[in-house]
Amino acid sequence: MKPVPEQLEYLLRATDRVVPRAELEALLELGRPLRVKLGVDPTAPDVTLGWAVVFDLLRRFQEMGHVAVLIIGDFTAQVGDPSGRSETRQRLTAAEVRGYADSCLEMLRPLLLEERLEIRYNSEWLGSMGMEDVLTLTSNVTVSRILEREDFANRLTANEPVSMIEMMYPLLQGYDSVAIEADIELGGADQLWNLLVGRDIQSRNGQQPQVAVTVPLLVGTDGTRKMSQSYGNYISVRDEPAEMFGKAMSIPDDAMESYFVLAARYREDEAADITRRVAAGELHPGDIKRRLAREIVAIYWGDDAAPEAEAAFDRVFREGETPEDVETFTIDDTDPVWLPGLLRDTGLVSSTSDGRRMIAQGAVKLDGERVEGEEIARGTLVGSVLQVGKRRFVELVNGS
Amino acid sequence: MKPVPEQLEYLLRATDRVVPRAELEALLELGRPLRVKLGVDPTAPDVTLGWAVVFDLLRRFQEMGHVAVLIIGDFTAQVGDPSGRSETRQRLTAAEVRGYADSCLEMLRPLLLEERLEIRYNSEWLGSMGMEDVLTLTSNVTVSRILEREDFANRLTANEPVSMIEMMYPLLQGYDSVAIEADIELGGADQLWNLLVGRDIQSRNGQQPQVAVTVPLLVGTDGTRKMSQSYGNYISVRDEPAEMFGKAMSIPDDAMESYFVLAARYREDEAADITRRVAAGELHPGDIKRRLAREIVAIYWGDDAAPEAEAAFDRVFREGETPEDVETFTIDDTDPVWLPGLLRDTGLVSSTSDGRRMIAQGAVKLDGERVEGEEIARGTLVGSVLQVGKRRFVELVNGS
Repeated sequence: MKPVPEQLEYLLRATDRVVPRAELEALLELGRPLRVKLGVDPTAPDVTLGWAVVFDLLRRFQEMGHVAVLIIGDFTAQVGDPSGRSETRQRLTAAEVRGYADSCLEMLRPLLLEERLEIRYNSEWLGSMGMEDVLTLTSNVTVSRILEREDFANRLTANEPVSMIEMMYPLLQGYDSVAIEADIELGGADQLWNLLVGRDIQSRNGQQPQVAVTVPLLVGTDGTRKMSQSYGNYISVRDEPAEMFGKAMSIPDDAMESYFVLAARYREDEAADITRRVAAGELHPGDIKRRLAREIVAIYWGDDAAPEAEAAFDRVFREGETPEDVETFTIDDTDPVWLPGLLRDTGLVSSTSDGRRMIAQGAVKLDGERVEGEEIARGTLVGSVLQVGKRRFVELVNGS
Repeated sequence: MKPVPEQLEYLLRATDRVVPRAELEALLELGRPLRVKLGVDPTAPDVTLGWAVVFDLLRRFQEMGHVAVLIIGDFTAQVGDPSGRSETRQRLTAAEVRGYADSCLEMLRPLLLEERLEIRYNSEWLGSMGMEDVLTLTSNVTVSRILEREDFANRLTANEPVSMIEMMYPLLQGYDSVAIEADIELGGADQLWNLLVGRDIQSRNGQQPQVAVTVPLLVGTDGTRKMSQSYGNYISVRDEPAEMFGKAMSIPDDAMESYFVLAARYREDEAADITRRVAAGELHPGDIKRRLAREIVAIYWGDDAAPEAEAAFDRVFREGETPEDVETFTIDDTDPVWLPGLLRDTGLVSSTSDGRRMIAQGAVKLDGERVEGEEIARGTLVGSVLQVGKRRFVELVNGS
């Protein structure tokens, strides 16, 4: 293994907090492969560049010889992490979660090394717990510890309901650390509190408590809120190159520096230097954003894909054309056609509810004209180009 | 069944709150036997006159044709009701609880009618719950509902720890109401909040919510705190007549009126009248307290036992003698003897920790002399009278 200072420099690039820092150094001094936990709850079908930030960190731990223990929170996803929430989540069914888990895992694996990778599902230990175990778990934590949590405190102060089930979430994800004997746990900055509850629960179960390492949250393409599938302000790791390029071009200028660091893997000093030079008029913000967008596409699709994506983007945006390689989709012969279902079937949106939202937002067009209402005569559709937002198109053709 | 107004008059004698009152009347109007829940957690070996108050009420429901559903909280006892607590309870083991349950039930059954009596143990439904069921249960209640609870709020404000397991208690006892389909639940005044959580949980489980009926708390023989085995200020339903009589004589004068109503089953107007006549100098408080003590003994030991108990009390107290019927106890031949163990074995105290407390308080005497220290030479003990407090004696004899 590499010397500790070298490991620290590589690992802690673009991280937010290390709690407690001294314990991380002591762990690395042990010279053994550490067990580094990262828990992801499959509550949505996609993986965003926001998630990719913490996966980059996990991969760096693998590169330094440590073991990545990726926990697919198939059980906790059914409970729902209340972090940062202003209301109680709807509970997902086991079937929904299974579908999301498969889809996420397919996208997540390429972000990590195949060696020193352990993938576990937390239903393995949580699903078989009985009432007695649950009670013992609740006896490990005080109410005030849970209420310290900022989002709970805010909601309670505002007299907004917090369900008791939300207080269970931190205990369950904390028990994951006991089950896999984590040395370190990684998470987004908004997960720090959850990670620290994990420390408490490990201590109460006779384990050395894990060190918490967090990464900054990547802001969404709107430049204001955290990137999230529920806010619709995200870039997916499986967005097609042109789509990914276009979304990256849509971020506000003042989000560029953090995107360079968190999404394009630039060093913090390099990114700061770019910002300085843009401010000084030495670089043009538009050119810089193109560089950022190309870098992001290159990470997920390879170096060759970047210039192609840029060219496609230019055709659509600069020249107001539909892209040359519009895919076709054969519509079936029901009449009228239920548009949210068609949008999902074409892949233009990820779900019918997403489709309905897009229609309601006026983001769905047919041959460039905004569509209103959810039912459309089949004859109107055949031969037209259906479009969602600025960059997703499909040409509808007749199957018969 | 009797007309509703007549039932109400009989049932609501000496009760505290009925929530909601209109629903109780509507239930009685149905004209069917109602299911009346009373949950008791066997957390101590004895049954006090404090418990007897609510059992009186339950028996009155039986007399009116309704069904008493007595829930032995063998599962919830292991969790611990935080009501009125200023700190987290020690969790009891299953074996301790089973012992207490048997002992309590033996004392409780005579307080009720044998007909229209259903006895259930809540481990039946709670013990088999899995994690999923627990989570569904927690999703039924909001955090603020639980934190409304005065004792939690007080402890949290004072920065005293409240364990998460204590927040589970109200949910579990509330689920009991779902399991047995309670129409009404009875409890002490300090249980009202628990009973109302039961209403919430029934509603969330598609049941008509129960009506909560509470009784006032009986003050302990110290005249200040609630009667409780943990405070040692209690009269047990199985105290021997002379002991029971003596304890009743020890209550402060200003507690007499509530004892007449809650422990001696007087009507509230009768009890108020006695207080008025004592205050006016028409009745002597000492005579009245004797009447109260005789009435209480008569309830648990029959009318004939009352004058005997009074005579025995007089011999000990007025004449400073040991009672004539002192029991003997054969001490074993360990030397020295561990006094707390001996006190428990003789039945003078209920546990060794109780024994240690009594020694520390200077309440243990040997031939009238206060005993200090916990180990005593066997030779000193043989042939002596061992005494706890003013009214409990045993003569120690040699077995060999």
